[in-house]
Amino acid sequence: MGRAVVPLLADAPYEVHVVRHSRAAAVPGAREHRADLLGDPHAAEALVEAVAPSHLLHLAWYTEPGRYWTSGLNLDWLAASARLLRAFAAAGGRRAVLVGTCAEYDLTDGTCVEGVTPLRPTTLYGAAKNALQEVSAAHTGVAGYSAAWARLFFAYGPGEPPERLVPATVRGILAGQSVELSHGRQLRDFVFVEDVAAALVKLLGSEVEGAVNIGTGQAVSLRDVVEAIAERLGQPADLRFGARPADPNEPPLIVADTTRLRDEVGFAPAVSLAEGIDRAAGWWRERVSS
Amino acid sequence: MGRAVVPLLADAPYEVHVVRHSRAAAVPGAREHRADLLGDPHAAEALVEAVAPSHLLHLAWYTEPGRYWTSGLNLDWLAASARLLRAFAAAGGRRAVLVGTCAEYDLTDGTCVEGVTPLRPTTLYGAAKNALQEVSAAHTGVAGYSAAWARLFFAYGPGEPPERLVPATVRGILAGQSVELSHGRQLRDFVFVEDVAAALVKLLGSEVEGAVNIGTGQAVSLRDVVEAIAERLGQPADLRFGARPADPNEPPLIVADTTRLRDEVGFAPAVSLAEGIDRAAGWWRERVSS
Repeated sequence: MGRAVVPLLADAPYEVHVVRHSRAAAVPGAREHRADLLGDPHAAEALVEAVAPSHLLHLAWYTEPGRYWTSGLNLDWLAASARLLRAFAAAGGRRAVLVGTCAEYDLTDGTCVEGVTPLRPTTLYGAAKNALQEVSAAHTGVAGYSAAWARLFFAYGPGEPPERLVPATVRGILAGQSVELSHGRQLRDFVFVEDVAAALVKLLGSEVEGAVNIGTGQAVSLRDVVEAIAERLGQPADLRFGARPADPNEPPLIVADTTRLRDEVGFAPAVSLAEGIDRAAGWWRERVSS
Repeated sequence: MGRAVVPLLADAPYEVHVVRHSRAAAVPGAREHRADLLGDPHAAEALVEAVAPSHLLHLAWYTEPGRYWTSGLNLDWLAASARLLRAFAAAGGRRAVLVGTCAEYDLTDGTCVEGVTPLRPTTLYGAAKNALQEVSAAHTGVAGYSAAWARLFFAYGPGEPPERLVPATVRGILAGQSVELSHGRQLRDFVFVEDVAAALVKLLGSEVEGAVNIGTGQAVSLRDVVEAIAERLGQPADLRFGARPADPNEPPLIVADTTRLRDEVGFAPAVSLAEGIDRAAGWWRERVSS
């Protein structure tokens, strides 16, 4: 997500400072800093003090597929994020956008509406994100900065971890393996990573406060996503729906109400599912075959 | 509160390790450790790893009168507490009691019932405590320990900060000053510090999980508290009710429903308001006159 955001920020009227833990390729238009938010909070705080950023876009969290729902690292990221926010405010920061998740909502409702759908996370990941959302909202009230909470739905696209649905399906098909799936009727709000990035940048530049869903407002079935990938790759695909058990507690429908994003932030996603799948599948094909 | 808790723990079948930031008089029956949870989380985590406690009673937070409601240190304490909890679980901890506040509740309800009264903190202090409560509840579910969340009402007694209602009133009367107060009709659940300590120790030794109110279940008016102090001191008191404006947003009534504390934890406060005021006023009189 950071990779998709930085070029957009560099085009906007910002002096962009990228902070990350690991060394990586230089990002054109951005100054780079290395800091370990988890392991060395003092270093991160000293960096924030030195840079004195006006705006903060905080994307970092633990997101290892299969593990992040229950990992104790969610507590560490809550801690690191709270400290980062405090350092940002202390250094005179004016506007922050933090990243949350649809997993904060009571997902039995299906369509998630900010300020209406109850917040009732059922996972440690959702609870830690929601805890940060609550404390950041209270903090803005006393510390004199403005903040929004971007609740992400199902982001996909180039660069996502290879274990996730889209890349795993692409890789399976390209390898000629059978792709084992659950029934595939789960309806989800998939949003292309570049649309997420553009929404975050638009939100950062706005004065909108509080939670804003980042999604398309359209639910598609996992089956439709997987079949679109197979079609895009244009080669025989052995898709085995029903080969894996579905979690009986899994919500049948998770979709964003995007009224706030559209009417208050003034943003609408531009990339259709067909185009997004096309680009994501193409990106992964290049990497698998090279 | 720590001072009141440690002797009770030392009487119970625990090996007591006291961790604090500042040097202080030795506590009989306890091993003492110095660690700066805020400034040096690694040191605190190393200590938890070395001691490998079975039980954790976490009392530390920022509580400076007049400032703690809105201080950014609430974020730091949320961060430090999240990290402490994670270190505790990683070191094999089995049972934790963390301390919350009635300020987590929607206080327009008056009587606060765990699991029924909505959690709707209106202050950064309340939001940070509630955030910790939510994330700790989710953490216990995946990290394999048991935890309770002690929601404190209006604790008073020997050792509390001198700016708070009871000591400030005692000191004002003893100094022969007029004591300026608001109307004094606010009804609050005052609970003596030794009862709080005994409730916490009982809760720590129990298997009760989740939020438990720590109060008496009885509301008394601030006026009654102040007049009881004056009576106890037995000297002329110039009590000026109405001399200070009351906060128009202040809830008229804040009282704990103590059903859970009584029926599930098996604890009932033992110190009446008259006795508690007697002891608190006596304690402060000794210190003011010495």
